[in-house]
Amino acid sequence: MASLVEKQPFKALFSFFLLVLLFSDTAVSSHRKRFDRKKPCKQFSFYYHDIMYNGDNVANATSATIVHPHGFGDFLFGKFVIFDDPITMDKNYRSKPVARAQGFFFYDMKLDYNAWFCYTLVFNSTEYKGTLNILGADLMMEPTRDLSVVGGTGDFFMARGIATFATDTFEGANYFRVKMDIKLYECY
Amino acid sequence: MASLVEKQPFKALFSFFLLVLLFSDTAVSSHRKRFDRKKPCKQFSFYYHDIMYNGDNVANATSATIVHPHGFGDFLFGKFVIFDDPITMDKNYRSKPVARAQGFFFYDMKLDYNAWFCYTLVFNSTEYKGTLNILGADLMMEPTRDLSVVGGTGDFFMARGIATFATDTFEGANYFRVKMDIKLYECY
Amino acid sequence: MASLVEKQPFKALFSFFLLVLLFSDTAVSSHRKRFDRKKPCKQFSFYYHDIMYNGDNVANATSATIVHPHGFGDFLFGKFVIFDDPITMDKNYRSKPVARAQGFFFYDMKLDYNAWFCYTLVFNSTEYKGTLNILGADLMMEPTRDLSVVGGTGDFFMARGIATFATDTFEGANYFRVKMDIKLYECY
Repeated sequence: MASLVEKQPFKALFSFFLLVLLFSDTAVSSHRKRFDRKKPCKQFSFYYHDIMYNGDNVANATSATIVHPHGFGDFLFGKFVIFDDPITMDKNYRSKPVARAQGFFFYDMKLDYNAWFCYTLVFNSTEYKGTLNILGADLMMEPTRDLSVVGGTGDFFMARGIATFATDTFEGANYFRVKMDIKLYECY
Repeated sequence: MASLVEKQPFKALFSFFLLVLLFSDTAVSSHRKRFDRKKPCKQFSFYYHDIMYNGDNVANATSATIVHPHGFGDFLFGKFVIFDDPITMDKNYRSKPVARAQGFFFYDMKLDYNAWFCYTLVFNSTEYKGTLNILGADLMMEPTRDLSVVGGTGDFFMARGIATFATDTFEGANYFRVKMDIKLYECY
Repeated sequence: MASLVEKQPFKALFSFFLLVLLFSDTAVSSHRKRFDRKKPCKQFSFYYHDIMYNGDNVANATSATIVHPHGFGDFLFGKFVIFDDPITMDKNYRSKPVARAQGFFFYDMKLDYNAWFCYTLVFNSTEYKGTLNILGADLMMEPTRDLSVVGGTGDFFMARGIATFATDTFEGANYFRVKMDIKLYECY
């Protein structure tokens, strides 16, 4: 009889521990899930369009050069551009923008074309409201290059991740289109 | 008697597990606390003052335009300003600064006023020593707008969070004051 | 006899709990290790060299001033420099670079020399491929000053940390060398 009586609290204790462990484990897992190493917690793919102001196209242009120094190499070194560019789901720059990219880039290499970007993706649609802040080197000689998503607000509160650029088209100084893949690895 | 003897190790085991679980749980909680989703781990509210250099006010001015292109819209598109602006607790720009804001902003919209900021809050007081690095779109048409606190040093080692702007006053091109609320959600 | 029989499941249960706890504890520890407060998960020390373009040294120069306003104080306020500077392990700027620093800095103080930096460290060697994105105030009057490593890509995927500057040499407007210590506190 003694053994039978004792098995009851034993079982209760066992259940209690299992519950606590499950709870504790869930807490860790949920935290780890939000900061998973390999799988993005959110992911987008879209197109960035830049139509440069040339003095004669105010209505269409979405960016303007504010400084254009000469003489340091032949690859636009120091050319500094500010933009408010549309982001679309497909390749047509006349499609309804899903976001705006507001920021700047400049060219920074003496012996080849190479750029550096810093900008905010501003979402203001029924689907998403908020921003993602992005910066990094745009190593134009590489087929794809990664920049850092360093923060976010609104629907992207505190987000971090990677933005991958791939040049889609480049029409001289007037227009270029970049495919942008955004992968967030920290979501709150 | 057997049951009595056995209850002792049983109790000891129970206490041991409770201790380990508590310890393990505390580790998780303390980690979660530092990275809480909803409650800031640190929070400030203060005023940012900008007195623009106009060629005639070197003594008072705290910022200067370094590029001022014309022609792309009527809303100062491309105007680029570098600042070393005082941060105060109240609205009086002559109050003792609690920090300096060092960085830049520029205007980036063709059809309305809109700006983009990137700067460091430099604290060097008895209360705080260190910096907070902040960047993002200043969507001036919104009553409040959020930027990202992307890093910190010193007393704000590795911090992340949100900086919320609200225009407090705007006196033409000469002076403006912005209320800045800083909420840190990652504190080390 | 009863007590002997009961000690067996007791031991089994004990072992089981120990295993689960160990496992759970390891999960927490490994997470905490990657986000440790005090010990960097990766650390570098190297030299950054900047040779300013003066109109006559295209072959050697690694940076160029794109804007140089005058009149707001005597400490180069507003001077804006874009660079693609070599990073070496020793003090000799002719040593094989281990990385490039691509970005910009500007001077931002009316009454003293003070700068602000934003750049990408681009690694493309057999040892490391990837980038680190860095920004913050370069408080030149301090012997050392900390900037924020706000993100990384490739081998530095999602990294965060601190970059510490110490001026090593300053030869007028032509050349300066900064010792850069990078400590990463978040490694994926």
